[in-house]
Amino acid sequence: MPNSKIISIGDEILIGQIVNSNAAFISEKLYSIGLPVRQIISIGDTEDDLINELYDSVNNYEVTIITGGLGPTHDDITKPVLTKYFNDELILNENVLENVKNIFQSRGFTMPGVNVEQAMIPKSCNIIWNPNGTAPGMSFEKEGRFIISLPGVPFEMKEMMNNSVIPMLHEKFKNQINYVLKSKTFLTFGLGETFLSEMIGDEKEITGENNKMAYLPSAVGVRLRVDVKADNEDDATVKLQEIEGRLRSKVGDYIFGINEDKLEKIVGELLIKQSLTIAFAESCTGGMLSGKITDIPGSSVYFKGGIVCYSNESKISLLAVKDSTINNNGAVSKETAIELAENVRIKMNSDIGISITGIAGPAGGSDEKPVGMVWIGYSDGKETFTKKYLFGENRERTRLRSATAALDIVRRKLLNLPI
Amino acid sequence: MPNSKIISIGDEILIGQIVNSNAAFISEKLYSIGLPVRQIISIGDTEDDLINELYDSVNNYEVTIITGGLGPTHDDITKPVLTKYFNDELILNENVLENVKNIFQSRGFTMPGVNVEQAMIPKSCNIIWNPNGTAPGMSFEKEGRFIISLPGVPFEMKEMMNNSVIPMLHEKFKNQINYVLKSKTFLTFGLGETFLSEMIGDEKEITGENNKMAYLPSAVGVRLRVDVKADNEDDATVKLQEIEGRLRSKVGDYIFGINEDKLEKIVGELLIKQSLTIAFAESCTGGMLSGKITDIPGSSVYFKGGIVCYSNESKISLLAVKDSTINNNGAVSKETAIELAENVRIKMNSDIGISITGIAGPAGGSDEKPVGMVWIGYSDGKETFTKKYLFGENRERTRLRSATAALDIVRRKLLNLPI
Repeated sequence: MPNSKIISIGDEILIGQIVNSNAAFISEKLYSIGLPVRQIISIGDTEDDLINELYDSVNNYEVTIITGGLGPTHDDITKPVLTKYFNDELILNENVLENVKNIFQSRGFTMPGVNVEQAMIPKSCNIIWNPNGTAPGMSFEKEGRFIISLPGVPFEMKEMMNNSVIPMLHEKFKNQINYVLKSKTFLTFGLGETFLSEMIGDEKEITGENNKMAYLPSAVGVRLRVDVKADNEDDATVKLQEIEGRLRSKVGDYIFGINEDKLEKIVGELLIKQSLTIAFAESCTGGMLSGKITDIPGSSVYFKGGIVCYSNESKISLLAVKDSTINNNGAVSKETAIELAENVRIKMNSDIGISITGIAGPAGGSDEKPVGMVWIGYSDGKETFTKKYLFGENRERTRLRSATAALDIVRRKLLNLPI
Repeated sequence: MPNSKIISIGDEILIGQIVNSNAAFISEKLYSIGLPVRQIISIGDTEDDLINELYDSVNNYEVTIITGGLGPTHDDITKPVLTKYFNDELILNENVLENVKNIFQSRGFTMPGVNVEQAMIPKSCNIIWNPNGTAPGMSFEKEGRFIISLPGVPFEMKEMMNNSVIPMLHEKFKNQINYVLKSKTFLTFGLGETFLSEMIGDEKEITGENNKMAYLPSAVGVRLRVDVKADNEDDATVKLQEIEGRLRSKVGDYIFGINEDKLEKIVGELLIKQSLTIAFAESCTGGMLSGKITDIPGSSVYFKGGIVCYSNESKISLLAVKDSTINNNGAVSKETAIELAENVRIKMNSDIGISITGIAGPAGGSDEKPVGMVWIGYSDGKETFTKKYLFGENRERTRLRSATAALDIVRRKLLNLPI
């Protein structure tokens, strides 16, 4: 199986000034055409380090993509080092020079002398056109192995990958790649990695041989990524469908969406489908849940509004929670959650009312009510219930999980799933 | 000069599913204590690849930080491979087991059997405490070189870097580092990169030789990072103070904080200092501003509450905006912003009322009121004013910028700066 490697060049990566998002983009593209990346390496603008990596590339990888170090200033080393490594020489390319001049002109400038450098191209490489910038890409081939150098500016690099590099590599390697890779990510909420993996059981029974499943935990749920490998597109699709069926039979209720889905969008679509409206009373989340639901364009159709009742005073004055309820049970209690959910529904004239009241911390916890305890209330006029959670000691995560749990309660209710 | 290396482990990085933001965080921290990163390498969950990298690490780098591959499932290879590489053996650590059990217990669960694995620790390593998760970190030392393994979950890893790894490495290496690097980041809001750099002028006049300044733009303001290099701590401090003075004389009003400061925290501190309370009426931001201010522990002292009046109906019913105001001027208008700010202040019984009403898009724009137009209202009983913004076509950015702009208005008002 052909392997790829990415070399990211630039001191700004090594001092943590920028996050290397280019590598993720390139990895995904190469993976999709059957040239999976086995190594991503970031190095500085240092000749020796790049030379070492080039030896490794030519020896061990069918494809290497280099990004960065192609600017016109003297700390940009990629082009001179590649020229040296391939025993090549730089010659002026009139077409590239024309393009560089045009780019300056279109922005109202005359090309500075230093930029002539960018039209000096190693003789043996194929030029990769850069319509959005002054540094062209270069593709070197040696014994069927490709070393491809692209600029580090994400928007220039992406265009060149999509329109030049990927089609070219796909063409060159299609006879060596006699399989198809396909992946799908299932988004779950409500179970930690350990419990989820217990429910799923033996992974191989779900995926079959040659396919993989990975658990990707985060503060707001575990994503399950399934990768299949098949002889052709149709087989891959069928395999993925079969795996999805087996996976859903085990943990289907916990899967709220796939790939880039967002829970707030899924919930919005369910509300639209069932012609229902919703309103929120938020204490410890302080508006985050309302903020999430309104992230989705068009949410005004189903979202009636929210009240952030962060203080006891506002719970009483804005949402008519009874003094006695708070005095007898506390603001973080089943009883308060019920009154908040019912009253926000009535006040906002919505079909569903949701409340969140909890102790986000770091202060305010007790033995009986520890930091991280959260009550979520649900009321729809026919039914009112609450659910208690213990989200742990981190304030940020507790708030995020509370808002997510509230959305998941609505999802489950609208789909008639157990809560 | 001691060099560092980062090894990021995980197939999800190599297929482009996640961006390796951990590496940027770690790089910045190591740089700050004089252990600059010379190489960042991402590999999959593959024993051979990790073994190769470990040989390279021990031969060439004083410090190696490994992230990822420490979960309890069988595709997590870091711990077994480290144990093998160091000819070590795993033994049960009762303290770690206790911590793992406690973490499950605090969330209301019993620890599943598989998690006992996480308390099996190589004999020769020092344990790095992980207060936020079940996988402890491990530090191996060989001939003065350090191989440190941390979980890949960013929030666990960051806490461990800040509170354990960086202090430990700083102590171990302080005698080998004969210069001091110091950096300080100034957080600005309200000016784009181009205008900010015009106001600042020639960078070298601000920083002097050997020091650097970088512009780091984001959706919510430009961060200005200043790096100084000096012979000793005192010189570095003085240099940095001088640079800060020159920088503030140019763009001081736009600098709301430094380093990891948050605008919502700065505003909260100003409100506490002046014994003032605040309340929000949010339309297009839908609760994000309330969500931000309540991110800060203790915000209940000054935050009276918020109303998310996403619909016209809720602006009228919850905040008594006059029908005629909306009919004559629209919901996104100076007039509506004024009524919302005044009425939320009165209703919530707060000293200051803030309103945000705008067109987040993608729909709802017109020639007269384009997508991205936002009005922010301010009312404190003595004074009421509004400010209009054009934040552009991206919904997410417009909402984020609106919430940030509202906070910055409060900051400027409380500091008597021009608005």
